[in-house]
Amino acid sequence: MMSKEKKLVEEITPMDEDFARWYTDIVKKADLIEYTSIKGCCVFRPYAYALWENIQKVLDTKFKELGHENVYMPMFIPESLLEKETDHVEGFAPEVAWVTHGGNEKLTERMCVRPTSETLFCEHYKNIIQSHRDLPKLYNQWCSVVRWEKTTRPFLRSMEFLWQEGHTAHATAEEAQEETIRMLNTYADFCEQYLAIPVVKGRKTDKEKFAGAVATYTIESLMHDGKALQSGTSHNFGDGFAKAFGIQYSDKDNKLQYVYQTSWGVTTRLIGAIIMVHGDNSGLVLPPKIAPKQLMIVPIAMHKEGVAEKASELCQRLKKAVRADIDLSDKTPGWKFAEYEMKGVPVRLEIGPRDLENNSCVLVRRDNGEKITVSLDNIEETVTALLDNIQNSLYEKALRHREENTFDALSYDEFKETVDKNGGFVRAMWCGDVECENEIKEDTGATARCMPFEQKTLSDTCVCCGKKAKSMVYWGRAY
Amino acid sequence: MMSKEKKLVEEITPMDEDFARWYTDIVKKADLIEYTSIKGCCVFRPYAYALWENIQKVLDTKFKELGHENVYMPMFIPESLLEKETDHVEGFAPEVAWVTHGGNEKLTERMCVRPTSETLFCEHYKNIIQSHRDLPKLYNQWCSVVRWEKTTRPFLRSMEFLWQEGHTAHATAEEAQEETIRMLNTYADFCEQYLAIPVVKGRKTDKEKFAGAVATYTIESLMHDGKALQSGTSHNFGDGFAKAFGIQYSDKDNKLQYVYQTSWGVTTRLIGAIIMVHGDNSGLVLPPKIAPKQLMIVPIAMHKEGVAEKASELCQRLKKAVRADIDLSDKTPGWKFAEYEMKGVPVRLEIGPRDLENNSCVLVRRDNGEKITVSLDNIEETVTALLDNIQNSLYEKALRHREENTFDALSYDEFKETVDKNGGFVRAMWCGDVECENEIKEDTGATARCMPFEQKTLSDTCVCCGKKAKSMVYWGRAY
Repeated sequence: MMSKEKKLVEEITPMDEDFARWYTDIVKKADLIEYTSIKGCCVFRPYAYALWENIQKVLDTKFKELGHENVYMPMFIPESLLEKETDHVEGFAPEVAWVTHGGNEKLTERMCVRPTSETLFCEHYKNIIQSHRDLPKLYNQWCSVVRWEKTTRPFLRSMEFLWQEGHTAHATAEEAQEETIRMLNTYADFCEQYLAIPVVKGRKTDKEKFAGAVATYTIESLMHDGKALQSGTSHNFGDGFAKAFGIQYSDKDNKLQYVYQTSWGVTTRLIGAIIMVHGDNSGLVLPPKIAPKQLMIVPIAMHKEGVAEKASELCQRLKKAVRADIDLSDKTPGWKFAEYEMKGVPVRLEIGPRDLENNSCVLVRRDNGEKITVSLDNIEETVTALLDNIQNSLYEKALRHREENTFDALSYDEFKETVDKNGGFVRAMWCGDVECENEIKEDTGATARCMPFEQKTLSDTCVCCGKKAKSMVYWGRAY
Repeated sequence: MMSKEKKLVEEITPMDEDFARWYTDIVKKADLIEYTSIKGCCVFRPYAYALWENIQKVLDTKFKELGHENVYMPMFIPESLLEKETDHVEGFAPEVAWVTHGGNEKLTERMCVRPTSETLFCEHYKNIIQSHRDLPKLYNQWCSVVRWEKTTRPFLRSMEFLWQEGHTAHATAEEAQEETIRMLNTYADFCEQYLAIPVVKGRKTDKEKFAGAVATYTIESLMHDGKALQSGTSHNFGDGFAKAFGIQYSDKDNKLQYVYQTSWGVTTRLIGAIIMVHGDNSGLVLPPKIAPKQLMIVPIAMHKEGVAEKASELCQRLKKAVRADIDLSDKTPGWKFAEYEMKGVPVRLEIGPRDLENNSCVLVRRDNGEKITVSLDNIEETVTALLDNIQNSLYEKALRHREENTFDALSYDEFKETVDKNGGFVRAMWCGDVECENEIKEDTGATARCMPFEQKTLSDTCVCCGKKAKSMVYWGRAY
């Protein structure tokens, strides 16, 4: 190997040695993130932003199919507006950025940069909803939000991040509940089908729910290091915000009624999930459906007659079927191999003088390193099928990992030992009291990830206090 | 007419009576904008945002074809970073929003919300550019920016607006200049081909150029009321920012060189231009290429057998060819006519019982009210051709308006009279001194819109001071 190739690979900390460093190494080496002089803020570099654009494309299309419309709300919230719903302000006020001056002038009322936009949507809904004919309102917004953080963990925790926030208003509580679950399912399907990440769907405990929500639902995924990641949430607000903001409509009998609301969101955190579920010691491993480049052509012995030309022709052909590209730079093939492995490109296509003679090329899978020599006839079909296969393999592998790292605990000793030794998801029964949640967190660092929709009675008693159990909970240490 | 129909139309102020009120009436009545409790900030409602999404789609595709990549930079700029380039900070510091507190804690250094992101891109470029192999860097960002404003004129002037900002770094001054002009041309072509708005391309005077730029180029369009609107700008920074931020690369001879930079942007202002160039006293008139809905089907006598079914079938057919929709609500046809006129939908398709018998329908053009009865055979081709025709007509009409409102002034008296009486663009010779610009602005309210690429010698002397003229300038009162 050339020195540059070695350097590229050597600089990643092995996953088993230090997972957190492995993560930040990949984030830098795969050109996803660059730090800035602003604490807590990163640059989303083109490769990361392209991933986000692919996520946006799929979700935005799905949202629109389900009848949602995009809007754009102001990024500022006056303090008095943020304060209108009591639980909400308590949840968010400690972590907002405050604008106090405009130009040289001090503001009479300070404004925060949106940490989330419930209050703005509520003010707007109050203005535009009058009659039952105006309902439902199914709005969504793509934007960035700010939550005060001192530390930066790229994609996982930062002062500013990108997201979408859906906000809907309905005539009845039932419709709002349906929407809440519909959008949770939309997220779950997206994670499983596009990101190849299996998720557990469930409801958050009251301690873990969103500030101002009646109920918060979540999809939870398991990272390679056994930690959980909350990957998307959907909230049912009931009529709490509507009452705080006075959002009423006249029903068919001309009586005034409060609306019922929901909100739901996913963030650039999903990029963190992709890294930590699929990545390995050579870098990123991207699911084909979301990869900015699905196939990279690396010509071998490029100085030999016809190689560059034939490879370029092949690239043009393949571009019609998949997101293909070619690297014609003067770097060595070995250097290119290492680079596109680092970037997680699902398939590498090698083509050299001997392949030209045989009308063939070599395809190398990023996920398992498998090499196959294939004919150039029907190469489009071969590649498409291979990408499908990789997509499915990644999902199966992630599912297996989650299954192997999901444990049942029947006693508190077993619970603590499992969290400590194995990490992963620990399923255990819970009485419903926040005291037990607090004790478990203090003793083990694990939090209630969710009460899964798929319940199972492991025993009749709470794993912590021994009182009568109400539900099974997925516990785990989380990002 | 029904009362509701009358109300919808009556509430728009006629354009000739009060253009500013006509504008704000449309903005509200066409459901583009809703005001908020935050001074200077609006809600971009679904119809406005859909227009912006259509603008984004076309431009983003074009930018990417030209090799640009999207990134996302932090929304905050520390004060010390904003201050690095002297002209730049002088231009922007008076009009930024300052964040001074995070949570309950006072910041040691305040940060502004980006009014534009040159300083952030420069900091980033300093980090990621080392060698001539790293150049050019062709980055773009879609985001919102904040500039302190007390008054709101939706789309035209507001505290927060949406835009894209391209930022590029090049090895040579020549490449930077080429990029600057290439992107100006991209904007001009987009305005003319998609928005049906003719533009004058030219260079800004030093007084009007961007804070920190060597040269600013602009496209200027003329609104229906004779005022000019700066519709897009492209800046050549030379190596000024590079020197202030220390952005250097090693060239092929391993010598350190400064990069040359550009930036360029268009904003949601373009929506204001669409309104003010094409709108009329019945509401919006949207160019088909950018209209969220290109055709709206309004069934007539919907209670009659087969009408709703046939109309829905027709809608499904047309959806494959154009952005078609149908209104099956129980509102009267007259109400629907007024509503879709207000929203500027390019073509209305009426279909009733008699049409069903004749295998025909009626198409009504939004731009000139022309009605034609056409066969349902080949309706897709008929509609597509009609939309093309409307697109071209709108452009021709706008061009004619601009030509009829572009005047040459040879003396200062003529100049002042023309600005006062006719408005529009006034072309006149200029000596190049800022004193004359200031005097003209004070006397007439007109500013130098640009020194057009297409120069013409109207006379040898400056229209203001009579000294030797250097160039012909487009002058006008502007938004």
